[in-house]
Amino acid sequence: MPSSPASEVLTFADIESAQEVLKGVAVVTPVLESPLLNAALGFRLRVKAEPLQITGSFKFRGAYNAISRIPEDRREAGVVAFSSGNHAQGVAASMLGLPSVILMPKDAPKTKVELTRAWGAEVVTFDRFTESREELGAKLREDRDATLIKPYDDPLIMAGQGTLAAEAVRACAADGWTPDVFISPCGGGGLIAGCSTAVRALSPETDVYSAEPAGFDDTARSLAAHKRLANDPAARSICDALLAPEPGELTFAVNSERLTGGLSVTDDEALTAMAVAFKYLKLVVEPGGAVALAAAITGKLECRGSNVLVVCSGGNADADVYARALSRPLPF
Amino acid sequence: MPSSPASEVLTFADIESAQEVLKGVAVVTPVLESPLLNAALGFRLRVKAEPLQITGSFKFRGAYNAISRIPEDRREAGVVAFSSGNHAQGVAASMLGLPSVILMPKDAPKTKVELTRAWGAEVVTFDRFTESREELGAKLREDRDATLIKPYDDPLIMAGQGTLAAEAVRACAADGWTPDVFISPCGGGGLIAGCSTAVRALSPETDVYSAEPAGFDDTARSLAAHKRLANDPAARSICDALLAPEPGELTFAVNSERLTGGLSVTDDEALTAMAVAFKYLKLVVEPGGAVALAAAITGKLECRGSNVLVVCSGGNADADVYARALSRPLPF
Repeated sequence: MPSSPASEVLTFADIESAQEVLKGVAVVTPVLESPLLNAALGFRLRVKAEPLQITGSFKFRGAYNAISRIPEDRREAGVVAFSSGNHAQGVAASMLGLPSVILMPKDAPKTKVELTRAWGAEVVTFDRFTESREELGAKLREDRDATLIKPYDDPLIMAGQGTLAAEAVRACAADGWTPDVFISPCGGGGLIAGCSTAVRALSPETDVYSAEPAGFDDTARSLAAHKRLANDPAARSICDALLAPEPGELTFAVNSERLTGGLSVTDDEALTAMAVAFKYLKLVVEPGGAVALAAAITGKLECRGSNVLVVCSGGNADADVYARALSRPLPF
Repeated sequence: MPSSPASEVLTFADIESAQEVLKGVAVVTPVLESPLLNAALGFRLRVKAEPLQITGSFKFRGAYNAISRIPEDRREAGVVAFSSGNHAQGVAASMLGLPSVILMPKDAPKTKVELTRAWGAEVVTFDRFTESREELGAKLREDRDATLIKPYDDPLIMAGQGTLAAEAVRACAADGWTPDVFISPCGGGGLIAGCSTAVRALSPETDVYSAEPAGFDDTARSLAAHKRLANDPAARSICDALLAPEPGELTFAVNSERLTGGLSVTDDEALTAMAVAFKYLKLVVEPGGAVALAAAITGKLECRGSNVLVVCSGGNADADVYARALSRPLPF
């Protein structure tokens, strides 16, 4: 790859280095396929099943990669992290023997808060619509002299998340299957930045798209406008994992070069995708984790006849939201 | 193994032969583990995630193994199968290019009936409490000159199901983990017959238990009595995949030698296990598929400090039963 803003932020070598760190620690999650779902859709769909990752989402990959590189003399002070609700940072810190404080939004799913505490992390809650998690995080970091682990705008985080796509593309290649299209959920853009870097390196002909919830399609709009645009602060979505206010500075530097485009889906479409994953894949997916699958199965792209690889990025759904998804009539 | 009634029915060589047939066709399903669930339980639990098998259950393995061995001149007449509701026989037949008629109970989950038809099988329904599926099957077989594929009492079926345990034990051995206890769901006994044969061969120190729904604990009682005992015809359970009337003749010949004992769980415990698999494993499991997990997590055996390997055997749950499972308060 020629030198460019993106290649100064993140290269495939960074992802390969993260793969070394994660070896034997992160789960090599399977790629699932349902022949019956393929028949209903008219194209071949494969799903990287990241809900089966330790902690139930991809976020463990980036968190572990970043925390594992904290210098010896900074480990005792621990880490401060803010997460859109997943508890990966707390788990990764705990596995590496570092104390952690996790800032979580007050309205995060109860499951996620509970699981984070169960891993031994200290949880501090904030109101995501009136308080700045960045300010709270900075203050906590200062008070405790801890290392701040950003949720996405950090090359080590992006590199960790990108290992997921490297695994998936290589697993598919092993049985002679090349994706024409790759779609991944997108919040702040760390996952798709890592994934697009891996896909471009391993499968340069594959088109790469981000998928976002309607109202939080900042990456899609920013890609079209060639500059970072924020979401309307009044927007709401059930996709709690994907509610970043705008693309990250570093993630957008990567994504603006490496993505083909951005897609968005409604909350209803995300719920439908959850029900499809239940019926055809037997995989529990949370709303935000289901947006790429939703984009593929609701025709946001013309996929007929193609090989489509989507990431289901997490499965930490509350039971009531899940039951709501299952109560819906399915299109097939 | 010395010659014995069991070794005349099924040997580990039969399972290795089935593994050859299933290579590249059946999914090598992952073994899942949740550190957080382990902490709550006080023992290490691993779960063979067979809902991720093609057709959503283990039954595809045995069906494909048996149907693939039908002689060339008998293929055109097709197969007749009766299934406790899974649609594996129809799928396996369809993949091998044979027509199929599948006898299914009238009260089978709608999902299973639908999926079976979607695979191109002809579905004939019967009342499982007033009609004999064996008689209906025999009549259909005669009318059509088709080959009858039994659900469990056939060495080729048992051998196919046993590949699941061979995979799981070997996957665990690859990271130095040996199960002290192995538990698998049990209906007619084909799955546990194949699994116990594989476990005894690959990990002779491991105790092997069947798990059944209360009221359908014919294998547990038969093991204790050293003879085949039937269930009360008035018994009912939500574990639709496990409602065989009594142990098979051939499966019991195997199981009476190779099982350590039999466990049973209530419908409520099966529902709890489904909710635990949702929360900690992100895996969709149907009631019958969850009974081994239920036995492990509700203390039917003293497992503290042990390595416990359980099979979750299928995930073809109807949405309403699943929502009912999720509405339950969890023990942890």
